Amino acid sequence: MDSVTNLEARLRAVEDRLEIQALAARFSDAVNERDVTAFAQLWASGRPIWEIGPPPQSRAEGIDEIIAMLRRLFQIERYFMQMTHSGVVTIDGDRATARFVERERGQGDDTYYDNLAVYDDVLVREPAGWRFLERHYRYRFLDQTPFEGNAFPVTR
Amino acid sequence: MDSVTNLEARLRAVEDRLEIQALAARFSDAVNERDVTAFAQLWASGRPIWEIGPPPQSRAEGIDEIIAMLRRLFQIERYFMQMTHSGVVTIDGDRATARFVERERGQGDDTYYDNLAVYDDVLVREPAGWRFLERHYRYRFLDQTPFEGNAFPVTR
Amino acid sequence: MDSVTNLEARLRAVEDRLEIQALAARFSDAVNERDVTAFAQLWASGRPIWEIGPPPQSRAEGIDEIIAMLRRLFQIERYFMQMTHSGVVTIDGDRATARFVERERGQGDDTYYDNLAVYDDVLVREPAGWRFLERHYRYRFLDQTPFEGNAFPVTR
Repeated sequence: MDSVTNLEARLRAVEDRLEIQALAARFSDAVNERDVTAFAQLWASGRPIWEIGPPPQSRAEGIDEIIAMLRRLFQIERYFMQMTHSGVVTIDGDRATARFVERERGQGDDTYYDNLAVYDDVLVREPAGWRFLERHYRYRFLDQTPFEGNAFPVTR
Repeated sequence: MDSVTNLEARLRAVEDRLEIQALAARFSDAVNERDVTAFAQLWASGRPIWEIGPPPQSRAEGIDEIIAMLRRLFQIERYFMQMTHSGVVTIDGDRATARFVERERGQGDDTYYDNLAVYDDVLVREPAGWRFLERHYRYRFLDQTPFEGNAFPVTR
Repeated sequence: MDSVTNLEARLRAVEDRLEIQALAARFSDAVNERDVTAFAQLWASGRPIWEIGPPPQSRAEGIDEIIAMLRRLFQIERYFMQMTHSGVVTIDGDRATARFVERERGQGDDTYYDNLAVYDDVLVREPAGWRFLERHYRYRFLDQTPFEGNAFPVTR
């Protein structure tokens, strides 16, 4: 029984790690597929914080402001892709921090956006699973000069 | 015994998720390393479907057509790298769907290819493990104008 | 009891895979965050090898040379991001090989660096966990012509 308890703790650690990685993946998927409903489910109850930049800077506190900020960004970036690369995750009980390497490309009406950045995250385990309590997007490279090629709307 | 059965089910769920992520990683590795044998092992028996685009569009049904399509693409893209980012995976018994964020860069004789896309996938669990039943590559950004720099052949 | 032993072996296989992926993620994080201490902890005892290129080529053997090489690269690339994508991992007892898809962007004083590559790795399991015994960075695309936009230093 002791060995089963020990196995359960190890398995739980694996599940936690994978769930947090999946949460970051679901974030990219929701913004790329322009799925506001899926996006809303990624955030902790209470007063989660979503911050991008500076520069440029956007900041929202609470799920209503977060959804409003997402809709504003969707209006600016008519075509948009977020690419989530590897991340480091540190779990401490029901709290975790993570940092994911990101790249984004966006295009609007005469606007262009290509950047490299990291997302510095704070996560909490809630009854329904891990959720973002804070996401801070820190730019490392930012290019807003025009790029070539075609962009295609999301269809399925 | 009950707790062991429960642990086994949870472990199986973790293994499934990791195996599907590994399958997508093996896909990128096989095309990047130009390994046709490894590529052939990623597909389900029966009549798997591999579709890219439009635009441009390529489509193959069945492993023979799929291998022929890969060889055609290798001729066009003499230098090629596929970058697989995060993906969302939904498992339902022996079936799964997934969507991975992709970026590709290719170069041929006077051709250039740089794109961002998603792979929409259907997977099945076969006796030997998870395999692709369908892969649909949907472009989001596509740039075929010349880029700078050098490309290097695969060597080891 | 037999089923518990079997579960433990399967769980260990999952942990090994995740630990190796986390090691590659920690490598990118350490170079991106310019954290020499974290970087030093990723390497095996004995005489690990870190090789980049050619071209250009850098090579170090042993942790002292490896740290010196990292510091040299930090001087050249004042702004730098390494993006680790998917990788294939093959584990054989306490040894493993892996190949990760990479992209890097760097900028220095009048130098520019944008590349796609793979990291061919050899890993060993040590008492404290998996470590890199060898990393070989093989360029597939390399562009050192100027790019546009702004770069930002690491801050937190």
